[in-house]
Amino acid sequence: MSRYEESIIEGRNEVIEAFRSGKTIDRLFILDGAQDGPIQTIKREAKKHDVRIDFVQKSRLDQLSETGKHQGVVAYTAAYTYATVDEIMKKAEESGRPPFIFLLDNITDPHNLGAIIRTANLCGAHGVIIPKNRAVGLTATVAKTSAGAINYTPVARVTNIGNTIEDLKKQGMWFVCADMDGDVMYKQNLTGPIGLVIGSEGEGVGRLVKQKCDFVTRIPMMGDIDSLNASVAAGVLAFEIVRQRGEWQ
Amino acid sequence: MSRYEESIIEGRNEVIEAFRSGKTIDRLFILDGAQDGPIQTIKREAKKHDVRIDFVQKSRLDQLSETGKHQGVVAYTAAYTYATVDEIMKKAEESGRPPFIFLLDNITDPHNLGAIIRTANLCGAHGVIIPKNRAVGLTATVAKTSAGAINYTPVARVTNIGNTIEDLKKQGMWFVCADMDGDVMYKQNLTGPIGLVIGSEGEGVGRLVKQKCDFVTRIPMMGDIDSLNASVAAGVLAFEIVRQRGEWQ
Repeated sequence: MSRYEESIIEGRNEVIEAFRSGKTIDRLFILDGAQDGPIQTIKREAKKHDVRIDFVQKSRLDQLSETGKHQGVVAYTAAYTYATVDEIMKKAEESGRPPFIFLLDNITDPHNLGAIIRTANLCGAHGVIIPKNRAVGLTATVAKTSAGAINYTPVARVTNIGNTIEDLKKQGMWFVCADMDGDVMYKQNLTGPIGLVIGSEGEGVGRLVKQKCDFVTRIPMMGDIDSLNASVAAGVLAFEIVRQRGEWQ
Repeated sequence: MSRYEESIIEGRNEVIEAFRSGKTIDRLFILDGAQDGPIQTIKREAKKHDVRIDFVQKSRLDQLSETGKHQGVVAYTAAYTYATVDEIMKKAEESGRPPFIFLLDNITDPHNLGAIIRTANLCGAHGVIIPKNRAVGLTATVAKTSAGAINYTPVARVTNIGNTIEDLKKQGMWFVCADMDGDVMYKQNLTGPIGLVIGSEGEGVGRLVKQKCDFVTRIPMMGDIDSLNASVAAGVLAFEIVRQRGEWQ
């Protein structure tokens, strides 16, 4: 369902055209201090599409540029096109099974994101939702690490994970996040229409996102260190959900 | 229990001394065609300690060398010291719980090895056994990815995983490996003294090792692609064992 398309776009008109044709821009670099009309237009488009702008020196743009004709602006388009949350919910509906989605609260390591999309595919999840800011997007490394799963499992990008949880609750979804103060996962009911929220590698699930979750679950830890790798934790939780849903039978 | 120590050893006497003082040599590079006495001694020591030798051109040794005085031989010592299988079994005995060990059949990605050691620590496993040849050893990357687990969970290196399985069977261990033709893990009895065998990233568990396992188990796969990431699969299986053993209660 996705289409591979990674490229660098350089030059004012080219970047404006990319925005207007609906291309997904992952990263945007603008010459620090540039103020002319086309740059203002690019800034407006970036704001409209919630794209983060990095204001950089000319030397950085020269380094990023492949043509040498960047005119003060360089953009990176997504390696893969993103789905929408509605498309993920539609896919769930069509499957005839209760929705099962992953929400990733700021995973920054592309290997982890790829491995999680791979897991989402194999545990029968209907899609993965990631935040627009700070987190890693669908880069070439993510695609490779997903072992092809990125071609099957839709990935949507949203501005605010917390708001998305609120919206999906109104559609009957339940949300669970993993943290050490939850009940052990084996004893909790993880069946039904479920959204599994996975926190970032360093900090876990953010406080505001955690507050919006219906319950907190805990992977039992019996060792000496703090936490599992984020993609391992996602896999362990996902297959506990699979076990409880009994769809493997 | 482990101690960090990564270094390059160069020169004939230095490498002979490293072997004789019991240092664990991970990689050994010898000038192709070198035949003199000290080189013969190094080859004998390497054979005795089951260290693989790479015979290389002078230009490669020059490249590896930090001092420029390699005299035709460069060795890398392990970043961490290895435990023995007996030490792992002793740790299990002391824990008062049935032994639970991981055996990795040729994991080659240091990030996967690190993540698996991390998982082994947190699921309460008593140790990890890896093969000497081909597979990745305890490098600095593995140590970092293990998030500190390498300091607590013993890792032993053996010449032949199959022989180690045979030996441990005589001590009452049962061995399970993961493959698609096994019964689904949720329905199998994974309690008791157990060795979990994880295959390599590309090829899964080798045929000879699989034949020595007492049973084959399957993670249910409901997606479009072939397999989970090796460290995710190890985590999913490990925590199904944890669930069944009930030690988290």
